[in-house]
Amino acid sequence: MTLNSLGLRLEADKLFILDQELLPHEEKWILVEGPDHMVQLIKSLKVRGAPLIGVAAVLSLAHYGQREQNALAIKNAAEKLRQARPTAVNLMVAIDRMLQAFKNQENLMQKAQELFHEDVQMCQGMAQSGASLIQDGDQILTHCNSGGLATVGLGTALGVILQAHLDGKKIHVWVDETRPLLQGGRLTTWELQKFKVPHTLICDNMAGSLMGAAKIQKIFTGADRVALNGDFANKIGTYSVAVLAQYHNIPFYPVAPLTTIDFAAKSGKDIPVEMRGEQEVRGYRQTIWAPPSPTHNPAFDVTPVSLVTGLVTDHGYFSQADLKNQKLKGLENELL
Amino acid sequence: MTLNSLGLRLEADKLFILDQELLPHEEKWILVEGPDHMVQLIKSLKVRGAPLIGVAAVLSLAHYGQREQNALAIKNAAEKLRQARPTAVNLMVAIDRMLQAFKNQENLMQKAQELFHEDVQMCQGMAQSGASLIQDGDQILTHCNSGGLATVGLGTALGVILQAHLDGKKIHVWVDETRPLLQGGRLTTWELQKFKVPHTLICDNMAGSLMGAAKIQKIFTGADRVALNGDFANKIGTYSVAVLAQYHNIPFYPVAPLTTIDFAAKSGKDIPVEMRGEQEVRGYRQTIWAPPSPTHNPAFDVTPVSLVTGLVTDHGYFSQADLKNQKLKGLENELL
Repeated sequence: MTLNSLGLRLEADKLFILDQELLPHEEKWILVEGPDHMVQLIKSLKVRGAPLIGVAAVLSLAHYGQREQNALAIKNAAEKLRQARPTAVNLMVAIDRMLQAFKNQENLMQKAQELFHEDVQMCQGMAQSGASLIQDGDQILTHCNSGGLATVGLGTALGVILQAHLDGKKIHVWVDETRPLLQGGRLTTWELQKFKVPHTLICDNMAGSLMGAAKIQKIFTGADRVALNGDFANKIGTYSVAVLAQYHNIPFYPVAPLTTIDFAAKSGKDIPVEMRGEQEVRGYRQTIWAPPSPTHNPAFDVTPVSLVTGLVTDHGYFSQADLKNQKLKGLENELL
Repeated sequence: MTLNSLGLRLEADKLFILDQELLPHEEKWILVEGPDHMVQLIKSLKVRGAPLIGVAAVLSLAHYGQREQNALAIKNAAEKLRQARPTAVNLMVAIDRMLQAFKNQENLMQKAQELFHEDVQMCQGMAQSGASLIQDGDQILTHCNSGGLATVGLGTALGVILQAHLDGKKIHVWVDETRPLLQGGRLTTWELQKFKVPHTLICDNMAGSLMGAAKIQKIFTGADRVALNGDFANKIGTYSVAVLAQYHNIPFYPVAPLTTIDFAAKSGKDIPVEMRGEQEVRGYRQTIWAPPSPTHNPAFDVTPVSLVTGLVTDHGYFSQADLKNQKLKGLENELL
């Protein structure tokens, strides 16, 4: 059995992940040794993107289940994976679904494969649902990376953008570099180059003046967790983009599959935000440019539904009014 | 004759500048060889900050005038210096004042010294005028560097903040790192450490969520050129900060001396914005993290007066209403 995506491969019973910390300059595939190793790969962001970490985690758990029969060991491994990062809910949802399958004595590897293929299909669903929002000639801003490297399919927000390009629409993409870990500057640019989509890289602080100059017609971003009322967490800086979008009357769309919705979170207040290490803000990897001043480093921020034009999902489009009217409620039944 | 500031020294007839590209890790003083050399130092941002480049340019011109008697050569050198960077108007104003002095057969070195001391006094004026806006307990955001490294005195916006600290007010400063050249992360942190002012470094895209969390009470930034109606140019990203400030009802104050006002610019539309090289956005100095995607790199953006709470100058405070009522008009007479 073989699975293949831009950032993950299962081949001859071996699980590999593409080291996203080293992209775009080095394409190094890492052989995953087991769940503990996967936890480290997730924490260090070598594997990243809310949907991808969910799928990668369940594949490493299923793989572990093939050689470990002890139920407690499997549950412990699942729990460690579940806690690898606190904000993206896909990871928790995916692990819970594996534990349910385990309880039902289903084959874990088969279940993990199902979740892999489900993610590919969800990306298709979002791409179809979202691409219709894009017009020929649009200039589109995106933040962070939400493409094939963040999922095992075409992507979430970037998938929508790529779909519009594949549909033959003439578009231009403005890419926020997305400090501190530069997923826009390193990963989104790399994906857009692969698809030959016209794009321009900018520093995060340049998006506002581009909006002021009417150079941006639409904004699409991913999401790491969506609350029932439409508030959502995404990469730090998304909130600022949303405020700037509202000021400039630019439509702003988060894009997420059902696995990103936290049906237990009533609003953004129920979403925990991961705080990361101080050094990430003082430089980038080995290059440190700041003196040892204190830094602040939340990995995410929460954007309220009042700044959202609409949410694109694999189950269709939800306008701000739909979100406020709790139209996401009950969709969890579609996942089971 | 000796002149001394944080980033510039005149000693035994030799002019030195502190290489701001290498700060904070290396404090290297560069002996300025002449006006052409100074033009290169300004273009490469080894000397930077609107008031400082004005003073540095006139000192190198005066120094050149001590060994060059040919009027045409002096005028040519002045013209090259004048064009070293297009946005900060202080440089142009300072060179024009030197050319006027030359025409009047005044001593150029004496005139340059006057301009040096005038800048120190202007910083004092801004500090006194602005510090009264800061309350005990305030958390203050600043962008880029507008301190002793950007002037030959205490600074403009950072000078105001430092003055509040020197006055014994308990404040906390949030420092935008200010991509792409990281003047906040490298220089403002360095100055705040010297003065032992409590501060925290953030990435530019984190300021919005801090405002949303009510962690910022006031915002002070420098300015590279102020138009007669109160629109002003400053480091790229300032416009975004101003929009975010208005959304969150946070007072937003640019700080500038009279030498930063362009009395010929009616509005922001009359301010040219320098575009810099593509590579600055792909990484930082020798560390390049992005693939060779196209980039966009304006050094400045223009913030309209509608987003300005008030302008702090060495000639007092001008509210948004004052600015809209053209109260800056006529102040040019104070300079002559």
